[in-house]
Amino acid sequence: MRIINKKDIEDIALGAALLGAGGGGDPYIGKLVAMGAVDEHGPVTMLDPQEVPDNALVVPIAMMGAPTVLAEKAIGENEYKTLSSMISQFFGKEIYAFLPIEAGGVNSMLPIAACARLGIPLVDADGMGRAFPELQMVTFTIGGINASPMALTDEKGNCVIFETITNKWTEELARAVTMSCGGAVSVALYPMTGKQMKEFSVRNIVTRSQKLGEAIRTVKSCTDKTPEEHFLSFSESYKLFKGKISDVLRETRGAFNFGKVMLEGIGEYKGSEAYVEFQNENLLACVNGEILATVPDLICLVDAETFVPVTTDALKYGKRVYVVGLKCFEMWRSEAGLKLVGPRYFGCDTDYIPVEERCKGGTASV
Amino acid sequence: MRIINKKDIEDIALGAALLGAGGGGDPYIGKLVAMGAVDEHGPVTMLDPQEVPDNALVVPIAMMGAPTVLAEKAIGENEYKTLSSMISQFFGKEIYAFLPIEAGGVNSMLPIAACARLGIPLVDADGMGRAFPELQMVTFTIGGINASPMALTDEKGNCVIFETITNKWTEELARAVTMSCGGAVSVALYPMTGKQMKEFSVRNIVTRSQKLGEAIRTVKSCTDKTPEEHFLSFSESYKLFKGKISDVLRETRGAFNFGKVMLEGIGEYKGSEAYVEFQNENLLACVNGEILATVPDLICLVDAETFVPVTTDALKYGKRVYVVGLKCFEMWRSEAGLKLVGPRYFGCDTDYIPVEERCKGGTASV
Repeated sequence: MRIINKKDIEDIALGAALLGAGGGGDPYIGKLVAMGAVDEHGPVTMLDPQEVPDNALVVPIAMMGAPTVLAEKAIGENEYKTLSSMISQFFGKEIYAFLPIEAGGVNSMLPIAACARLGIPLVDADGMGRAFPELQMVTFTIGGINASPMALTDEKGNCVIFETITNKWTEELARAVTMSCGGAVSVALYPMTGKQMKEFSVRNIVTRSQKLGEAIRTVKSCTDKTPEEHFLSFSESYKLFKGKISDVLRETRGAFNFGKVMLEGIGEYKGSEAYVEFQNENLLACVNGEILATVPDLICLVDAETFVPVTTDALKYGKRVYVVGLKCFEMWRSEAGLKLVGPRYFGCDTDYIPVEERCKGGTASV
Repeated sequence: MRIINKKDIEDIALGAALLGAGGGGDPYIGKLVAMGAVDEHGPVTMLDPQEVPDNALVVPIAMMGAPTVLAEKAIGENEYKTLSSMISQFFGKEIYAFLPIEAGGVNSMLPIAACARLGIPLVDADGMGRAFPELQMVTFTIGGINASPMALTDEKGNCVIFETITNKWTEELARAVTMSCGGAVSVALYPMTGKQMKEFSVRNIVTRSQKLGEAIRTVKSCTDKTPEEHFLSFSESYKLFKGKISDVLRETRGAFNFGKVMLEGIGEYKGSEAYVEFQNENLLACVNGEILATVPDLICLVDAETFVPVTTDALKYGKRVYVVGLKCFEMWRSEAGLKLVGPRYFGCDTDYIPVEERCKGGTASV
């Protein structure tokens, strides 16, 4: 158990934005929401997963929709309370704690704001260890946990409860409602017991985000390594490319941001070219025609000077970035995991090969 | 209180199909569903609205979606039970009776099937006195009754509960889910007290449907009038046109059937031409460039020989039909009513003029 204050929030947002792999929302917006709630109600208590009783009701809470829309919509203070009472009423039981569903600039922050406002603890765990675009893409699905009953509310006060036959159906129906509500809504889903959470969540991911954020913030204070060496080392990432953004193709479709970012090499990559495809999150990185990383491994773009993560909605012509790859949570590399979030699910014409194998002997280095 | 048996169902389906004004679904499918339930569980008790206690919980039950899809999807037996328990659980109270939400070949029948299967009575009332394409288009909306909580289920077992800020929002969100579920679902909505139902429903509409159905079935047995005279008289309808269908333009969009049927005059209308526009239901009838009827008045096409109603999804090239207009329920002619279902809501560029005024001194006759 430890206390999360505003300083912690700053670092968690920054680190979570890296793990968001291009998605998960703008950390600047996320941290404003979390800090605002802490300013009003005081800091949040975060529990280690092991501190949660087996029979407690714990619930991931998140925003659903296209990150670009999310950045333009207000986030109502009442939405957490509404979601909480919808789920509590359903089970006839109080919610013991919230947790994030994914790591990302916004979706790591909203549960903190919700915990502050409702005075309940946060659990140091999530369901992805990164961000993914669809709601069935969580370790909880692999664990056989239902997304239902799922509560959804918008800033206007519309409320919907879903009870579906599969988690993919929850995604289908909730996505349709999200679009009708204007493209972004607040949701509480995968209500589960403490026991289920301990078994199937990505544990201590908030702490990992915070450590990553702190390291990025102080990346230039390392005396025995260059900032690049230091970043690659503490983030345990593979360097895939360094380049200047030469084009960004975007399309918002079905409440998702689809697109492709084109890069021209700089530094030791001069003369090379690369592209990264995304659906909210980065899906595939290709350098000089060779695929160097795919989902479910994390493909992250970070600013070439500051190492601050660049989300897909912040991609801009001329920006200089590193493209790095991080190993995903082990459960994603299982057969069940790859069925849910492997490259073929996203329409990429390649089998999954772990980033560390794809980069072996290539241009990548850890 | 009276008993509804299979013979009654036959006539109710036929008469309701006329009041469906082109929509409300195929009466053949509707009656098979209702008769199947009565075969299995025995006949249904129908209550006069006045027989329902003021504090009883009564709930309209219906299919939502495009009639063409509705005709192709199986209607599960468990769906009524699911809807009933969703609503009961919400209120912590048993449902006293079901009622139809609209008059139509399918939507007048499903509540009968539901009542037979669940062993509860049917109320002789609905919320339109005809069929309309969107769910906020009910007299209950005029009465300030909420469509929420609305229960929705599909044949696969997915369930959704909506609690929305307006009935138009219920329509928006439920329509989106209906489309994701394949275009047709079962719903229970506008849960209300007996008192509210008595005040704002279209009373004795099932009985009216039955009388209309019986009269259509025996239209040729009248000895002192031609079948045409007899039909126009008992249905209290205005003859707008008689013609042969020369073209049907259709589009299924947003879970609605949109379209336009073109007609070439026959008999005394030879040389004339007409068209009828529809969105599930017929919206506007125009003869030789003159609008003779619009929503909310009922525009109905009936077979030129048998006087059996022709729904918009059964329109076919070459079919010979009468186009007739019926006065709508009085509440629709109020300012609030016309705001909900007047011609301008549907994009028709005309104010509402009652069918009896439009036809005065024209070609129409009652």
